[in-house]
Amino acid sequence: MAKVAIMGHGVVGSGVAHILRSNASLIARHAGEPVELTRILDLRDFADLPYADLFTKDSADVVDNPQIDIVVECMGGVEPAATFIERALKNHKHVVTSNKELVVVRGTRLTAIAQENGVNFMYEASVGGGIPIIRPLRQCLAANHIQRIAGILNGTTNYILTRMRDGGVDFDVALAEAQKLGYAEKDPSADVLGWDARRKICILSHVAFGAPLDDSKIPSEGIDKLTRADMLYAKELGRAVKLLAVSQRVEAGYYAYVGPAMIPAGHPLSVVDDVFNAVFVTADMLGDAMFYGRGAGKLPTASAICGDVVDVVWHKNGVKAAEAYQDQADALDAGTAVTRLFVRVKGEENGPEEQLVQKQLGDVRIVRLLRFPDEFAFITGEEPFDALQKKIDALAGQLEIRQRLRYDF
Amino acid sequence: MAKVAIMGHGVVGSGVAHILRSNASLIARHAGEPVELTRILDLRDFADLPYADLFTKDSADVVDNPQIDIVVECMGGVEPAATFIERALKNHKHVVTSNKELVVVRGTRLTAIAQENGVNFMYEASVGGGIPIIRPLRQCLAANHIQRIAGILNGTTNYILTRMRDGGVDFDVALAEAQKLGYAEKDPSADVLGWDARRKICILSHVAFGAPLDDSKIPSEGIDKLTRADMLYAKELGRAVKLLAVSQRVEAGYYAYVGPAMIPAGHPLSVVDDVFNAVFVTADMLGDAMFYGRGAGKLPTASAICGDVVDVVWHKNGVKAAEAYQDQADALDAGTAVTRLFVRVKGEENGPEEQLVQKQLGDVRIVRLLRFPDEFAFITGEEPFDALQKKIDALAGQLEIRQRLRYDF
Repeated sequence: MAKVAIMGHGVVGSGVAHILRSNASLIARHAGEPVELTRILDLRDFADLPYADLFTKDSADVVDNPQIDIVVECMGGVEPAATFIERALKNHKHVVTSNKELVVVRGTRLTAIAQENGVNFMYEASVGGGIPIIRPLRQCLAANHIQRIAGILNGTTNYILTRMRDGGVDFDVALAEAQKLGYAEKDPSADVLGWDARRKICILSHVAFGAPLDDSKIPSEGIDKLTRADMLYAKELGRAVKLLAVSQRVEAGYYAYVGPAMIPAGHPLSVVDDVFNAVFVTADMLGDAMFYGRGAGKLPTASAICGDVVDVVWHKNGVKAAEAYQDQADALDAGTAVTRLFVRVKGEENGPEEQLVQKQLGDVRIVRLLRFPDEFAFITGEEPFDALQKKIDALAGQLEIRQRLRYDF
Repeated sequence: MAKVAIMGHGVVGSGVAHILRSNASLIARHAGEPVELTRILDLRDFADLPYADLFTKDSADVVDNPQIDIVVECMGGVEPAATFIERALKNHKHVVTSNKELVVVRGTRLTAIAQENGVNFMYEASVGGGIPIIRPLRQCLAANHIQRIAGILNGTTNYILTRMRDGGVDFDVALAEAQKLGYAEKDPSADVLGWDARRKICILSHVAFGAPLDDSKIPSEGIDKLTRADMLYAKELGRAVKLLAVSQRVEAGYYAYVGPAMIPAGHPLSVVDDVFNAVFVTADMLGDAMFYGRGAGKLPTASAICGDVVDVVWHKNGVKAAEAYQDQADALDAGTAVTRLFVRVKGEENGPEEQLVQKQLGDVRIVRLLRFPDEFAFITGEEPFDALQKKIDALAGQLEIRQRLRYDF
């Protein structure tokens, strides 16, 4: 019998309670022993629940309770979650979390404390919601040098982009729809500006490359500047606009960035629509692989947590395996990564702007859409991002730049 | 230090040797200790290899060798592989295999012997080549009731179908191309008739539903009867023709089948092209997920084997976890599964054949392509497969049926 406590009975925490209770016999069969939900820490009252007797408002009932074997943290935020987890680990309890902010800010420290105390600290659910990605990277690809990870890691923005494309609506309209459906927060900044995806690619970079958990080094652009017009150009170019989080290993280290990019139709990432997420992985032996599924939501996220719980039960008498990467890939300037850019500028057909663009950027591909007679778009050649950006900046003094996003990734 | 022996130095076995040697320091870091290739069993001579001194022609040097901890079986076929593996397990060696025929025919027995002897028997590489699928199903989805698995599990047929669609060529031409490129065997029966996919869906049904390892109960149709015309109709209908291996859990048990089906464009499986494979999984808590990658080939398959080897090293002092499903889902008649069929029949526009079809099959959707004036296609309503097939059989006495394949899956 393994005894589990949940800290935080919000969306995800209540999902974990639901799965542990409703799939209890299945979980016991897989875990090899019953897994019992024993305690729930939450400051709110849930008197009407059938398991109301499990609730406590005192963290000591969880983290200092000798009866608890496994603590599932679903509180969100860094504190007091980190303090509670640290205490639980030091009391030799295994900890499973879905809290990506916590993993980014305290993951290294908490992992070390877990290992010192002979227990496991797992966070599969912190990236990609229900999609198995951390365990496949660590275990199934254990014999591979991972070369690149390119993910659609934020369901809110992916829903908005899908609606902009399929519904022909602008960003604001699609965002309002997403908010109405509960896919976007009232303050959607963390999603639409790319910060959520940045945390997740930070965690994946750590798992894949041993990169430090420091998301502040990862440049990110959001989707808030994208328009219906960009979607129409993308369609004309046979591409799909997606908010990508990319992390690439090169010899000297790795570089990572988050930003919108145009993905060729036919690439598996191009059909990842609505709130779905996917992680496209390239590795030296395996080649290309993709992991696709629900990147958020109560039950998918709780499903990933419960997978970790079963793994912890299998390894409850010790540390399953040390963190994979003791070596640490250095963060490189993502501006050095070679790419192509898609740029829209004001300028009529055969006007001086086309000549100016071609003079300053060389042999670019120019695209015009009939419905936008006062502008055109161009695709640059391949160059380091910063060099291209410098050229675009120089151009900006001479003509009106309406959009600029990555064409390749 | 963990010592590994490989049985069979063919395509996959030599790939395992390559990875263990070239990624040795990475593997040691992940495994927590060095993993040394110690012995290779093969009846052929490989005198020119830098590791020629590891070869032996005597199976006892591997299966009875007290120095070997882990045996990797890449011989193929049931015997003598099964006898060697059984002996290795009884000598308390862990065994990893990519041999799907062996797993189907002897998997239950070998798993039991492994557990009796306190060692692990792993076969991630037997399905989907390098794609992580068995471990994600067993571990990451451990808290889910898996509801359906739909896979593109054979790279040879997927390459042929992609070429038929993109190149506008017929089956025979695409097959010859695949043979020239080494994607298809000289005798391609096992691939094109669906037997290879049938073995793989049999293994996945076992992992997901506890279904018995008996592929003879799974009806399979191949792709050898498909034509260029079918591809053109699929395009007109906004669908892609794929050879699907499906296994669905229902209350009374499960049903499985292998056969070509038309997948809607936009479904993630529809962009799985060329030799790539993918497994689309639906589970009660996670919802939909997909695992995509290289389903065959030397290094991808060896990558999956080496992932198992690292897992075995983590658990070398015992059995990692008992086989997940002790309960066994019964095989049901796949003919009871509700579907729609795509059927092509001879008959000119507004001819008596259209009336006959509508009289006997009800309100079907009729599709005509200009380039085939002497025929039309129709999509049936939803009914159990056997009931639909019966109606098509009855029709066959009155008009010429040119094609019949699943429209839904």
